[in-house]
Amino acid sequence: MVSSLRLPALTSLFSPSFTRRSTVSLRRRLHLRPPLAAGFSAQSAASSPTETEDRVDSKKSGRVQDRGSTDRVITPRSQDFNAWYLDVIANAELADYGPVRGTMVIRPYGYAMWEAIQDYLNVKFKETGHSNMYFPQFIPYSFIEKEASHVEGFSPELALVTIGGGKELEEKLVVRPTSETIVNHMFTQWIHSYRDLPLMINQWANVTRWEMRTKPFVRTLEFLWQEGHTAHATLEEAEKEALEMIDVYTKFAYEQAAIPVIAGRKSKVETFAGADKTYTIEAMMGDRKALQAGTSHNLGQNFSRAFGTQVVIVPIWKKVDEKTGVLDAASSVAETLKNAGLKVKLDDTDQRTPGWKFNFWEMKGVPLRIEIGPRDVSSGSVVISRRDIPGKQGKVFGISMEPSILEAYVKDRLDEIQSSLLQRAISFRDSNIVDVSSYEELKEAISLGKWARGPWSASNADELRIKEETGATIRCFPFEQPQGTKTCLMTGKHADEVAIFAKSY
Amino acid sequence: MVSSLRLPALTSLFSPSFTRRSTVSLRRRLHLRPPLAAGFSAQSAASSPTETEDRVDSKKSGRVQDRGSTDRVITPRSQDFNAWYLDVIANAELADYGPVRGTMVIRPYGYAMWEAIQDYLNVKFKETGHSNMYFPQFIPYSFIEKEASHVEGFSPELALVTIGGGKELEEKLVVRPTSETIVNHMFTQWIHSYRDLPLMINQWANVTRWEMRTKPFVRTLEFLWQEGHTAHATLEEAEKEALEMIDVYTKFAYEQAAIPVIAGRKSKVETFAGADKTYTIEAMMGDRKALQAGTSHNLGQNFSRAFGTQVVIVPIWKKVDEKTGVLDAASSVAETLKNAGLKVKLDDTDQRTPGWKFNFWEMKGVPLRIEIGPRDVSSGSVVISRRDIPGKQGKVFGISMEPSILEAYVKDRLDEIQSSLLQRAISFRDSNIVDVSSYEELKEAISLGKWARGPWSASNADELRIKEETGATIRCFPFEQPQGTKTCLMTGKHADEVAIFAKSY
Repeated sequence: MVSSLRLPALTSLFSPSFTRRSTVSLRRRLHLRPPLAAGFSAQSAASSPTETEDRVDSKKSGRVQDRGSTDRVITPRSQDFNAWYLDVIANAELADYGPVRGTMVIRPYGYAMWEAIQDYLNVKFKETGHSNMYFPQFIPYSFIEKEASHVEGFSPELALVTIGGGKELEEKLVVRPTSETIVNHMFTQWIHSYRDLPLMINQWANVTRWEMRTKPFVRTLEFLWQEGHTAHATLEEAEKEALEMIDVYTKFAYEQAAIPVIAGRKSKVETFAGADKTYTIEAMMGDRKALQAGTSHNLGQNFSRAFGTQVVIVPIWKKVDEKTGVLDAASSVAETLKNAGLKVKLDDTDQRTPGWKFNFWEMKGVPLRIEIGPRDVSSGSVVISRRDIPGKQGKVFGISMEPSILEAYVKDRLDEIQSSLLQRAISFRDSNIVDVSSYEELKEAISLGKWARGPWSASNADELRIKEETGATIRCFPFEQPQGTKTCLMTGKHADEVAIFAKSY
Repeated sequence: MVSSLRLPALTSLFSPSFTRRSTVSLRRRLHLRPPLAAGFSAQSAASSPTETEDRVDSKKSGRVQDRGSTDRVITPRSQDFNAWYLDVIANAELADYGPVRGTMVIRPYGYAMWEAIQDYLNVKFKETGHSNMYFPQFIPYSFIEKEASHVEGFSPELALVTIGGGKELEEKLVVRPTSETIVNHMFTQWIHSYRDLPLMINQWANVTRWEMRTKPFVRTLEFLWQEGHTAHATLEEAEKEALEMIDVYTKFAYEQAAIPVIAGRKSKVETFAGADKTYTIEAMMGDRKALQAGTSHNLGQNFSRAFGTQVVIVPIWKKVDEKTGVLDAASSVAETLKNAGLKVKLDDTDQRTPGWKFNFWEMKGVPLRIEIGPRDVSSGSVVISRRDIPGKQGKVFGISMEPSILEAYVKDRLDEIQSSLLQRAISFRDSNIVDVSSYEELKEAISLGKWARGPWSASNADELRIKEETGATIRCFPFEQPQGTKTCLMTGKHADEVAIFAKSY
């Protein structure tokens, strides 16, 4: 039950695209081909139109859940994870397919999450001295070509504008896949001396990557993201800044989104050419394919603290003469909770049954539901149901409508839900990470769909061999390292750190 | 002096792109080719690279204004309006040229204005029932072709993606010049019955138009804007909504930006095919070219209420032993004003002289400057200078640092400045509008660079003839109409309304 209510996996939100430069070296950290779902992004995505059609067809044979409603059938998760995932996104009205293959319309409920993320992070970015800016999205093709080491791997992903104003352009323009090249071009004009440093900017923008396989909120042709770029007088300062920002992302993931990410450093193989170090946050994803790398069991279902409605109120009446009393009480409860700073939705339409509304708002991920019927009005109380505890167990009767009591009760429950979701997600994550001390153990863990954690000081060639043989890559060297001496799982030699291996998107 | 401190003309922000649909008629109000600078937009723009080079070259021969500063030369406005305009934008660091012709980087100070506008309008839009969404920026070329009446006039402005993922695309993609076609495509999927209405959505996005002549913040290849789209059950409701939104824009222009726009209805000739009515807000622009249509004397200089810093604090010291006392006092004053909700910048760098700082922040448009020197510290007071009253007249000595006194004084002055700027702008606007009762009078007014207002009930052909002969078009039929019977300035027949004629961008 709980599992069918999850919002889509939004892991893609949590990898940092903050690149650091140092004017000491003036080396650019070029992330022209970040790992999938890198960039702090709300990816908009879709399957191919053919897949879309398939979904529509499958619905025709589905059952009708509620009289008066549009057909609303959620494929059981156990039956077909991918179909379930797409059904939830469509039915919770988070997103819809755009007319061009691989594009997606982000609908109000999905976009509100993105806005909440922006609001939260804008405050943090500004506190840490970043300014928001906007760079043009058209980049001369020559900028990309200059990066000889990247153009090869990168050009399959580019969308190119070749015609402008009815004429063939002399130089093709790249629709930005990321802004490193253009930002660097501007930085060299703005930075004249150390007095112009540090220069710390941030951009919220759409970027385009010509992905062949797309999936809503995971991989799409166009997606929204945030990219930060800073320049510093010393490498030390750049390093400090990079760590500070990864910390902002990590706090956001844990405290706001209840996603227990693993923060760490990328391996040399996974670090992009031109960058000294790449830091990352790795979260477990959860569709069937990604189960092999952990699951996103923990992700979408959690967006409870700051995102979307938190409380929904459903008034219940049968007879006409009950309606006014119930609606008055419901409005007054809504007012109370709004004044307490909560995001409240009063669903008072009479075109849907209470049962339909219960399902709908559970699917939308609203953590608490308040039900108010005629008997509740008489007794001056309400019924409150928790989404994270399905059925009767999560339902409490007779909570007083008295504002101070109700407000305190609701706030306590919301805090409880946030912390219980996070705890559940941490348990899930940790139970899916296996400590390994040999390549054999690593292979076994990966084949079971787990993440493998083990000491590593072997070569790039060894790392690539593991990728080839198991499909797993080093996701990161986590900041949190176990104590004690370590022996490389591959070579048996001394290792300074453990690495985490997993299959990834 | 005041004139050289203006922010760039931001008139382009104030035309509504809210299009109305009615599912009664399901006619789309297609604005594929809005008049220049239509759309509620922060246009990013630039001259051609050649022009950019010219500007740089001209600076080489310029005088150095201040020791230790980068060359900072503002061409006198009286000498060359266009050069002055570009100089101010560059030197106040509002924007810079992008590497592609006609594109512009919006720098932090310019972008902060856009964010303030977003913050203000998002509240208003949400209050009036709109939801923010995001639509893909790639639109199938066939969508544009469907609109046979528009494709001809519109295609010269399109940027087309023809290569994606290294391959020629089967169907070219249009980089959105506006989103009507794709929004309509989605609306038809979402609206099943009257119960799905009204549907009111809003999008903040970048759009692309292949303009040949570009100018920062006025006309560019890519610019940021807001577009609203709504669908209603009845034409009356759509009309009501359209008027409500124009009112939101008008209030914003007057109350926040101190821009006295003229709100009204477009003439049939200027209304876009497919639309029943187009409402607009017309503001006077101000570069030399636009002087013929009024000027933007009133525009950029005003952005005082909610945009950018409002108060700058400049500490002044000569001897080292004065520094600490002055900086402490300045910090404490900054704190006081920040706590009062004001946007305050303490410019305490010791790499610039106070004189340099005075000029710099005046150029940035900061309305109030607080100076604090050693003598002020002893007397517990500050010196406050108003940007809108240059020289000694605008300078007041001995304002107490005591928080409640200082806060009240600063807030009163800011209110005064806002209202005085608006008043000045209204006077300027009104003194440049001439009431005309014949075509001869109209021609004379236009040739003097004024706006002509006169009764109009003549034909479309007459309107086009005026455009051909004078360069002026009907900007709008203003909502505010004079009383009494009216006689058409062209035909001498009865007229219901006066129209405003002017040259436009």
